Amino acid sequence: MDFISWKDIEFKDGFWGLRQDVLANATADAIYNRFDETGRIRAMNLNWKEGDPCRPHVFWDSDVAKWMEGTAYLLYHRPDPELSDKLEKIIDAIEKGQTEDGYFNSAIMTLVPEKRFKDRTNHELYTAGHLMEAAVAHYEATGQERFLKIMEHFADCIEKAFVTEKTASFKTPGHQEIELALLRMYHATNNPRYLELSAHFVRQRGLDPNDRVFSVPNGTPPAYPPCDNQLYYNDTYAQDDAPAHQLEKAGGHAVRAMYFYTAMAGVALETHDEDLFNACRRLWNDSTGRKMYVTGGVSAERYGEAIGTEYVLPLELSYAETCASVAMANFSKAMFCLEPDGKYMDMIELEMYNGALAGLSLDGKGFFYDNALMCRPRVTDFFKGIHATPLYPPYERQELFECSCCPPNIYRFIAAIGQYFYSTDGHRLFVHQYANSSASVAWGSGKITLEQKTEYPWDGDIAVTLHGKQSFPGEIALRIPGWCSSADIRVNHQPVPYSMKNGYAYICRRWQDNDLIQLHLAMPVTKLFSNPNVTETAGKCALRRGPIIYCLEGIDQPEYDIFDMCLPDSYNDFSLTTMTIAGQKVTAIGGVAMVSDPEAFSGPLYTTSLPHRRPAPMRAVPYYCWANRGVNDMTVWIQHNG
Amino acid sequence: MDFISWKDIEFKDGFWGLRQDVLANATADAIYNRFDETGRIRAMNLNWKEGDPCRPHVFWDSDVAKWMEGTAYLLYHRPDPELSDKLEKIIDAIEKGQTEDGYFNSAIMTLVPEKRFKDRTNHELYTAGHLMEAAVAHYEATGQERFLKIMEHFADCIEKAFVTEKTASFKTPGHQEIELALLRMYHATNNPRYLELSAHFVRQRGLDPNDRVFSVPNGTPPAYPPCDNQLYYNDTYAQDDAPAHQLEKAGGHAVRAMYFYTAMAGVALETHDEDLFNACRRLWNDSTGRKMYVTGGVSAERYGEAIGTEYVLPLELSYAETCASVAMANFSKAMFCLEPDGKYMDMIELEMYNGALAGLSLDGKGFFYDNALMCRPRVTDFFKGIHATPLYPPYERQELFECSCCPPNIYRFIAAIGQYFYSTDGHRLFVHQYANSSASVAWGSGKITLEQKTEYPWDGDIAVTLHGKQSFPGEIALRIPGWCSSADIRVNHQPVPYSMKNGYAYICRRWQDNDLIQLHLAMPVTKLFSNPNVTETAGKCALRRGPIIYCLEGIDQPEYDIFDMCLPDSYNDFSLTTMTIAGQKVTAIGGVAMVSDPEAFSGPLYTTSLPHRRPAPMRAVPYYCWANRGVNDMTVWIQHNG
Repeated sequence: MDFISWKDIEFKDGFWGLRQDVLANATADAIYNRFDETGRIRAMNLNWKEGDPCRPHVFWDSDVAKWMEGTAYLLYHRPDPELSDKLEKIIDAIEKGQTEDGYFNSAIMTLVPEKRFKDRTNHELYTAGHLMEAAVAHYEATGQERFLKIMEHFADCIEKAFVTEKTASFKTPGHQEIELALLRMYHATNNPRYLELSAHFVRQRGLDPNDRVFSVPNGTPPAYPPCDNQLYYNDTYAQDDAPAHQLEKAGGHAVRAMYFYTAMAGVALETHDEDLFNACRRLWNDSTGRKMYVTGGVSAERYGEAIGTEYVLPLELSYAETCASVAMANFSKAMFCLEPDGKYMDMIELEMYNGALAGLSLDGKGFFYDNALMCRPRVTDFFKGIHATPLYPPYERQELFECSCCPPNIYRFIAAIGQYFYSTDGHRLFVHQYANSSASVAWGSGKITLEQKTEYPWDGDIAVTLHGKQSFPGEIALRIPGWCSSADIRVNHQPVPYSMKNGYAYICRRWQDNDLIQLHLAMPVTKLFSNPNVTETAGKCALRRGPIIYCLEGIDQPEYDIFDMCLPDSYNDFSLTTMTIAGQKVTAIGGVAMVSDPEAFSGPLYTTSLPHRRPAPMRAVPYYCWANRGVNDMTVWIQHNG
Repeated sequence: MDFISWKDIEFKDGFWGLRQDVLANATADAIYNRFDETGRIRAMNLNWKEGDPCRPHVFWDSDVAKWMEGTAYLLYHRPDPELSDKLEKIIDAIEKGQTEDGYFNSAIMTLVPEKRFKDRTNHELYTAGHLMEAAVAHYEATGQERFLKIMEHFADCIEKAFVTEKTASFKTPGHQEIELALLRMYHATNNPRYLELSAHFVRQRGLDPNDRVFSVPNGTPPAYPPCDNQLYYNDTYAQDDAPAHQLEKAGGHAVRAMYFYTAMAGVALETHDEDLFNACRRLWNDSTGRKMYVTGGVSAERYGEAIGTEYVLPLELSYAETCASVAMANFSKAMFCLEPDGKYMDMIELEMYNGALAGLSLDGKGFFYDNALMCRPRVTDFFKGIHATPLYPPYERQELFECSCCPPNIYRFIAAIGQYFYSTDGHRLFVHQYANSSASVAWGSGKITLEQKTEYPWDGDIAVTLHGKQSFPGEIALRIPGWCSSADIRVNHQPVPYSMKNGYAYICRRWQDNDLIQLHLAMPVTKLFSNPNVTETAGKCALRRGPIIYCLEGIDQPEYDIFDMCLPDSYNDFSLTTMTIAGQKVTAIGGVAMVSDPEAFSGPLYTTSLPHRRPAPMRAVPYYCWANRGVNDMTVWIQHNG
């Protein structure tokens, strides 16, 4: 299975074209400037001195690296000499700063060079991995090998410290990432040692009971009160509790987990490791089937930024880290390579339009780290300064975080969104995602161009025109999303035979230049209900249309309390309207909800009769658009009476 | 308004007789032994030395004092020489240890005698107050003045330090309690200086911006991570944010607040202070009308053990401290003295049978400090050791807490439960509470005996027989509880005229010896709904019968998920059954709830159709009985479809 590179697909307009424009016009600078102001960029020059402001931090290189990676993607289709210059200057710094034997971590080298590979919590392999991903992106985008070579040198240094000479004081990364980065290095260089090193880290993890991030044994009750984060941590936190192929349940720190599972799937694929594949399948099924928000959020547990436990999905106290959603998309892509099932691409789509996308403001300058499923600003405000640790996700996106992993992660995700659109497998071409775009695909013995015209995700009509060879046989597999119960497929306006398998409509025929595939995906507004094991959402429904999950925002129903609004079971008469949020057109859902009479709100705290209810207009907006119009109540889950 | 003393009413059997038997047979020793084992009892001897185990703590005297107070009540009707001896020995220790000028605090005297009245956080006035309450109880119970005199001496010492000579380093107590205790001293001794000192502390509070418990100014965001509780604290925490008569909203640490409001009401009564009375009215209305659980719990906010903000009543993360419910009963009693309205006595009844009572196990040996409104042990267990601070209330009662204020508080509350039953106001006799009991009441020019025969709270038939004077005119006011919509009143089997006012049925007539008042209170099972401002309980109902709030426990419906159970709006066909929980007979509610088909639980996480539902038997038990039959799911609020 070969996925078409992010660079071979271009979004000039439409949903993703607009989002990438925003990246280019706002996000690239917004992130760079915040990183510059906070010393992250200049830390790469290794000239910070005691007494200077902005003391370097061990994971800062990863923030910068993800910005570099995203910028490399972005510049390919949207050249910008100034931005390019910024990127190259950071590469200069890394090149200059790298030790003779290949090591680089700006904080360790500046502050405690003697601590190199001495402390598993120091994120050195995590930052190395992100730098490697940036180098691969840069190489793919520019064809220049400079940065890639620097990182190859670093990879060699790591191999020496952890495999050949074993000089490192620990065995596996405290925070996974390098495993999947090494797989990308392997694909970029064809050097099998990087695959071997990745597989080494994947298979070594959980084997040695002394190779632990923290010294707190499993199950030890934390001392009260807490003095630092370590008290939340146990072996599950960093997936140290068992060897990879024995992991039964998705658990621990969600980003570490998702990065690790992605690498596990990659290693399983490359090494034909059925046990590891089965473990990946278990972990994917567990995290998506029992531990995932309807938006695609995969960390339900704030403390430890963790996946949490099955069917426990708190709404107002959700975590749903943006990075974890991005990582879930990549885990799903890796799973698809192991078994071509549409459910994996459905999951990517869920993250693309919801869980991950909500992490970025529509103006491209604000970010959510943790994502609320329900938000009452008056409550959050009341508890500000009372809770010692923040209990609630914020209700406004921020420009920067102390741990600012999410902004450059959603940036690189959107910049390379094309990577999820097409793949080929011999004579078969998979069309996974739908968006206005133009792609160049190596298929069979030559190249063809695929032109998608669509208003997707607002409309289910997609026209795909093939340009290229005069005539060629082949099978095109169109993903029929899991949310779609009625699809219509035509080629050149004529119905065609196709077979459905695992979420794909397979059309096998002799294709001609200029063939037009017309796909219609019915997109009714649908109520979603949760498994009855999920106590938090009992008696509630969520609204979905196409791939988009909707929410209620207070601003759209200023006269009502959105948490009081209730949709009767019999009600399905939703309407659609186009509206503008922060200058961007979106499709909103209109409807009629039942609300309590106003008097009830000023009435007694408890009564023996249900307050009288009356119909009221209700409007739902795409979840990813929330918090773009000021401070606001929000809920994904709506009271439902049925 | 004169309330009949706790000692003038006896519960031989029936609901409270049984509860007091349990106190005598189990609780008195259970608390004493835990306090003994942990060094609290022997700390009173002031001979702890560095290196000894069990270092004394500044609030330990209050734990012991509340045990002493409860024991004094208990011994009056249930003499026990051994228990009495334990009590007297502690008084011996205090007598021996008290300084010449009257001071006593075992921890300060043992550890840092030079710190006397130097640090507002040291709880010295709080422990002093509880010792005074114990002394008053001991005096009332025994007629002996020894303990009372010791505490009068202490009160004089305090007056000197805080008023006459102003040698103390702060002006008002860090934790209120002494204000209400001084009012009890005043009533026991008729010494007006104690009223004055109480009024001084009430009126001084909030005046001096430098008289603060903590140095963290209001609204300052706490440093992260927290290293101790102080970060949760601001001026509202200890009701320091405004002078008492200006307080607008109930807020801050709930027990401090309720103790303070009780004293405010007492001072308002004694000094005819209308402003203070109005403040009390505001605070009572705010805490009961916007910030109270349906069980009577008044601290919705775990961090800072605080009242929380209006209409925010988290269920699974409730705090609902037992002490705060006990204190709310006393605040309500003080309010009734200011204005004889049945709502105050309804509130006491709510606490008696629900919010406060749930703090004690049926065997009398286990205690809840914080009380869950909803509990999923599998969730609590999963997060044990992950959350640095406990997020959830426990699902099992414990024998002791590090801060063990609640066990002796519920102990003294039940031991003196008779104090809430009757009061007189000139020619008027109020009957506030109903229970099998025998009371001796000074009314008009003589004494009469009131004999109550009833199965209350399980049955609404109450027979009150008057014994005493041959014939006398007077008005008897029977409380018709707010929960009762249909009452029938007869005297000697004949309907009698009565007038209803503020929750009381006033019967004015010439009474005869042996007159029989027959009160029938209809007790249908009633669904309760919350104000639509309460997001947490939207779409849910609670069940109440008479004064009892019910809950679902997993053990009673082992085949179903109690959080999935849903009562249709049209369903009201509840039945009653008598069952035995931990050896005690209670009335359970039977009904039929709708539950999801079993397949739904193993089905997908999200679906587009509501899982099919079918009827299932449901049983609800009194909330105060929960967690007496092992580890168990529990919910007060039940899904409701209407």
